[in-house]
Amino acid sequence: MCNLTSYIYGSTNMRLRLPLLCIILEVILIILFGTLVEYNDDTHAKLWNENRTDSATRNDHENEFYYRYPSFQDVHVMIFVGFGFLMTFLQRYGFSSVGFNFLIAAFSLQWATLMQGFFHGLHHGKIHVGVTSMINADFCTGSVLISFGAVLGKTSPVQLLVMAIFEVTLFAVNEFILLSILGVNDAGGSMTIHTFGAYFGLMVTRVLYRPNLDKSKHRNSSVYHSDLFAMIGTIYLWMFWPSFNSAITNYGDPQHRTAMNTYYSLAACTLATFAFSALVNPEGKLDMVHIQNAALAGGVAVGTAGEMMLTAFGSMIVGFLAGTISVLGYKYLTPVLESKLKIQDTCGIHNLHGMPGVLGAVVGAVTAALASPDVYGHGLQRVFADVETGKWNPQSRGGFQAISLAVTLGMALFGGLITGFILKLPIYGAPPDTHCFEDGLYWEVPGEEEGHQELYEVATPNEVEKLSS
Amino acid sequence: MCNLTSYIYGSTNMRLRLPLLCIILEVILIILFGTLVEYNDDTHAKLWNENRTDSATRNDHENEFYYRYPSFQDVHVMIFVGFGFLMTFLQRYGFSSVGFNFLIAAFSLQWATLMQGFFHGLHHGKIHVGVTSMINADFCTGSVLISFGAVLGKTSPVQLLVMAIFEVTLFAVNEFILLSILGVNDAGGSMTIHTFGAYFGLMVTRVLYRPNLDKSKHRNSSVYHSDLFAMIGTIYLWMFWPSFNSAITNYGDPQHRTAMNTYYSLAACTLATFAFSALVNPEGKLDMVHIQNAALAGGVAVGTAGEMMLTAFGSMIVGFLAGTISVLGYKYLTPVLESKLKIQDTCGIHNLHGMPGVLGAVVGAVTAALASPDVYGHGLQRVFADVETGKWNPQSRGGFQAISLAVTLGMALFGGLITGFILKLPIYGAPPDTHCFEDGLYWEVPGEEEGHQELYEVATPNEVEKLSS
Amino acid sequence: MCNLTSYIYGSTNMRLRLPLLCIILEVILIILFGTLVEYNDDTHAKLWNENRTDSATRNDHENEFYYRYPSFQDVHVMIFVGFGFLMTFLQRYGFSSVGFNFLIAAFSLQWATLMQGFFHGLHHGKIHVGVTSMINADFCTGSVLISFGAVLGKTSPVQLLVMAIFEVTLFAVNEFILLSILGVNDAGGSMTIHTFGAYFGLMVTRVLYRPNLDKSKHRNSSVYHSDLFAMIGTIYLWMFWPSFNSAITNYGDPQHRTAMNTYYSLAACTLATFAFSALVNPEGKLDMVHIQNAALAGGVAVGTAGEMMLTAFGSMIVGFLAGTISVLGYKYLTPVLESKLKIQDTCGIHNLHGMPGVLGAVVGAVTAALASPDVYGHGLQRVFADVETGKWNPQSRGGFQAISLAVTLGMALFGGLITGFILKLPIYGAPPDTHCFEDGLYWEVPGEEEGHQELYEVATPNEVEKLSS
Repeated sequence: MCNLTSYIYGSTNMRLRLPLLCIILEVILIILFGTLVEYNDDTHAKLWNENRTDSATRNDHENEFYYRYPSFQDVHVMIFVGFGFLMTFLQRYGFSSVGFNFLIAAFSLQWATLMQGFFHGLHHGKIHVGVTSMINADFCTGSVLISFGAVLGKTSPVQLLVMAIFEVTLFAVNEFILLSILGVNDAGGSMTIHTFGAYFGLMVTRVLYRPNLDKSKHRNSSVYHSDLFAMIGTIYLWMFWPSFNSAITNYGDPQHRTAMNTYYSLAACTLATFAFSALVNPEGKLDMVHIQNAALAGGVAVGTAGEMMLTAFGSMIVGFLAGTISVLGYKYLTPVLESKLKIQDTCGIHNLHGMPGVLGAVVGAVTAALASPDVYGHGLQRVFADVETGKWNPQSRGGFQAISLAVTLGMALFGGLITGFILKLPIYGAPPDTHCFEDGLYWEVPGEEEGHQELYEVATPNEVEKLSS
Repeated sequence: MCNLTSYIYGSTNMRLRLPLLCIILEVILIILFGTLVEYNDDTHAKLWNENRTDSATRNDHENEFYYRYPSFQDVHVMIFVGFGFLMTFLQRYGFSSVGFNFLIAAFSLQWATLMQGFFHGLHHGKIHVGVTSMINADFCTGSVLISFGAVLGKTSPVQLLVMAIFEVTLFAVNEFILLSILGVNDAGGSMTIHTFGAYFGLMVTRVLYRPNLDKSKHRNSSVYHSDLFAMIGTIYLWMFWPSFNSAITNYGDPQHRTAMNTYYSLAACTLATFAFSALVNPEGKLDMVHIQNAALAGGVAVGTAGEMMLTAFGSMIVGFLAGTISVLGYKYLTPVLESKLKIQDTCGIHNLHGMPGVLGAVVGAVTAALASPDVYGHGLQRVFADVETGKWNPQSRGGFQAISLAVTLGMALFGGLITGFILKLPIYGAPPDTHCFEDGLYWEVPGEEEGHQELYEVATPNEVEKLSS
Repeated sequence: MCNLTSYIYGSTNMRLRLPLLCIILEVILIILFGTLVEYNDDTHAKLWNENRTDSATRNDHENEFYYRYPSFQDVHVMIFVGFGFLMTFLQRYGFSSVGFNFLIAAFSLQWATLMQGFFHGLHHGKIHVGVTSMINADFCTGSVLISFGAVLGKTSPVQLLVMAIFEVTLFAVNEFILLSILGVNDAGGSMTIHTFGAYFGLMVTRVLYRPNLDKSKHRNSSVYHSDLFAMIGTIYLWMFWPSFNSAITNYGDPQHRTAMNTYYSLAACTLATFAFSALVNPEGKLDMVHIQNAALAGGVAVGTAGEMMLTAFGSMIVGFLAGTISVLGYKYLTPVLESKLKIQDTCGIHNLHGMPGVLGAVVGAVTAALASPDVYGHGLQRVFADVETGKWNPQSRGGFQAISLAVTLGMALFGGLITGFILKLPIYGAPPDTHCFEDGLYWEVPGEEEGHQELYEVATPNEVEKLSS
């Protein structure tokens, strides 16, 4: 009994905790999927083929698969390679970065399918799934991975799974309020994904504040090759962000336009990032942290307005601003957040997702308020859903967009607070202050390379001592 | 003459062997392509444009290119990045893993185009090619790369090319028996690709058994960064597996449904993998070998049933089972296979492709036997080809699926046996037992990094000796 | 004033230079985009939706987005991951390779949109943008990145941006002459992209010749893991080259055929590369430089003829030749170019883009000259634009293709000469001869890994001295 107590409270051993949690969660998921989930009209053999009036294969190209699947795959790459490798910048936390990213994403996308299906509307008590629900589940997962960035290196995989349970649920509630009740636009998720994920994560890491994190300081930095691995993540996120923002917009011009606006925003953002990264360094040297992160802020900041008639011009201005505030945030705000507000934000998600997300929400509200039938023509109703219902009014639309930002911030901060206290319980095997940012705690880590090992054998401290005596 | 003999039998020098083989093979391929291969209706300028009744560009969207090419590219990434990087986990075999993977894949896809074209049906004596034949060729290549995983580190590139010649040929024969004679379903290749490739490779490595492989033991393991490179392969395979299984299914609902079933299977498999990886380790630590490999077993195991009405529920159960048996296989079965059956399986393909492939075949047989017009409606004939011919009977269909598994196992084991003995001839420059898993044998390998080199110069064993004397 | 002079002429400090240039360029770009750029018919909400006669979402699949966007994303990956990581082979220049590639690509694609839009034809004084202009901008960017390969490691980011300004402009002029005035075919850019980018870059590096580059010789080589990072670039370029060559061909059979021809050319090229790489090495060992680069020459060499009825047979011959001349170029020509012609070509772009580009132009001219209505049927006009105007004549078409090669070479060499002299001005903070191929000049570079550091601490030269005294 004593052993069990010490096991639960003191140890970081995952042998029982992690398998139990994974298996229980997966069994629950399987049961719920068995009870609640059905193929939708485009994936069901009977339903897809029953309404055909013409020859059998004639209109297969209208299956949503062909409109959405390439976008889905790009989003999928961002979730698993993009987020996963972006976080490998730490010198001895690469296994955990890619691996835990993998684990919590695989869990979250299943849980999100249920939560979003539940809130987005049941069909006779069933959740209908297809490629669009797959994209939405990946989106919700992205939000969890953003929060992961704030607590990176300081949490056990069990904590991360528990965080995902709560965050996915609250994400679905917030998304429901924004998209279904308030009826706002947020196709690329400046609010639902980035703002929500960032402030949720920041609140969690605030509650989990570690005053003695300095003890692991020497591991909380990069080495040469870990920075290159992280650039794999960065570049994939950057390249596929146009697909991310356009993945669930309407077919045709909205999808096309969103991808293009995002492309221009990111290009402008990249130049701003390089400019300000060199400018804030006394020797004019570029900082990998900025390049890896701030160059992506342009994608975040057009997540709401990207599908609107923002124009390339508008997108580039937004992107340039996003890159600028992101670099300045890394340089000047992050240290203050840590020292004054006790927010230890490992990846600086406040600079990449937080501030650019809020910027994106504001840009979205303004662009929506400026929309008019003159500019959009018959395309208006394909961007703003309430046009068809006759309730459309650009100013009130802009107002609802702004309200949505407030709701999102509130939900994120409140949810992060509650979740943070739940994660504070000493039962999850969290790493001690001395062993944060260290793979060895949860992974079998291989030795060094042969050449280096030999070297090590040649001149360990003991041997040097022997030699000198 | 004596030099020549010693060159042929003793040396690992590739200067004549590899160029000669590559050039001869490529010249033969070019001649055969010139004689036998033609553009199909969708790639031929004349044929594609002749049957148009309406305006010139109106129905271009019906070209198979737009239905299949995105899937093809995802499959292509799996073959070259997925398989290539997955095998870079070895500390000093990264060049060979990615490089030989590249070489034998580039050869195999050409040879497979001819072999599959020959068996799948000639058109007036000609092989017709288009994006579907490109996907099929990549599929066949995948099978060769699976076998490569079993012999990784213990074979010369010449041996690998010779293996590919035979394996591609037998793959085409087996595929012909299954798909054309028995008329079974195997869109994602649980049988044709995974089971075949795995048991073929296991038999080859059995015949090539090296009792003294221990001499290279210190190189048969990973280092920190090699495991991260391998994760690039893993994640790409994982992400794109839905595209793999759905790449050649029928348009519309089957393609859509297959991708989605695979997505859910893989997600469930990942949770099982993490759970059992921690459970089987005394300290509860996760093992990169499991994460890199077993998390993919869910894709293998729905390779046959994925296009059927397996449902998300069924897919998740299959994925969970696949991940479980795969981890347990790595932990408990692989050591036994090596010690008792003398099967040295470098990558553990038996756990990733062998057992999950067999599981996939069984699941496919059961799902086919349970199929009914009630569930599939008019979609039935789009999944099961023999419905249209009126010969359809679910139970016999399930039986044929089961027979196909037996045929595949027989073909693979027999083919691997013959090929293994051919590869045993001492003329291919295979590495000696002391130099397995070592790039330096076949590659110009660069020195260490500047910093490390200096270090090395500072304290080599000789210098230490000098100091102490 | 004295400090300012020394700052401008002597220092490599980027603190003012780089931010100023980036911000000025981006502001100019934003102003020009605001003045000149508009959504095209497929991205504009009003224009796309106004001409609909049937129901609102019926013909969305005809939006060019669905024909081109997957190709665009593949091209995008080639530009940012392909080129970026291909150049990480240098041991201490990975940050600059990926980072500067990122910076100049992000700038070039914006600048190219304007330059190409200007030359390709304004619409009432406006440039219309959509996915096709995004692909074209990425193509032009590719040309700049090819030139970057020649000067890699020897230029500051400011020099690279200045080079990009001029190269993009001349690229657009040359492309206009070829495609609009001469009306030739060059969908995959054997001439416009590869030949132009290569000879432009070679001339720039000739003008920037450094007689004392030997001082940085020890850094101008790879290490084990840097070669693996470079293979990420290689493999992505190789896999997606079919998408590159087919990205802007006509819909339907031309796009399909181009992708397939490129696929076969690359496969044959890979076997040639491995063959000749082993053959030219005394010990028969493969050289990573060849595999990383020459295996891609097959894609370059079918850049012009790929959309024509080249056949798989023809493509494979071209690919085989391209791989062969590329390896031989690396082995025998590159050293001569450096010693005799004073052309220091870091990445060997002459072997990967220069010679294969010229080969591609010649193959294109011959294939065009051999075209006939018998072979192409009604598809003829979809490949050769002047068929519709009635001016079509295969022999003159071939002639124009040949003239285009001469024009391209002239423009590239002349443009490179002028640009080279502009880049020679001592105001850009170029690296000194002793610090070429070194990230530390322009980047904050992290220390070594913990393990290594400790090791370093144990046995630094000083300590060894102390011990021995």
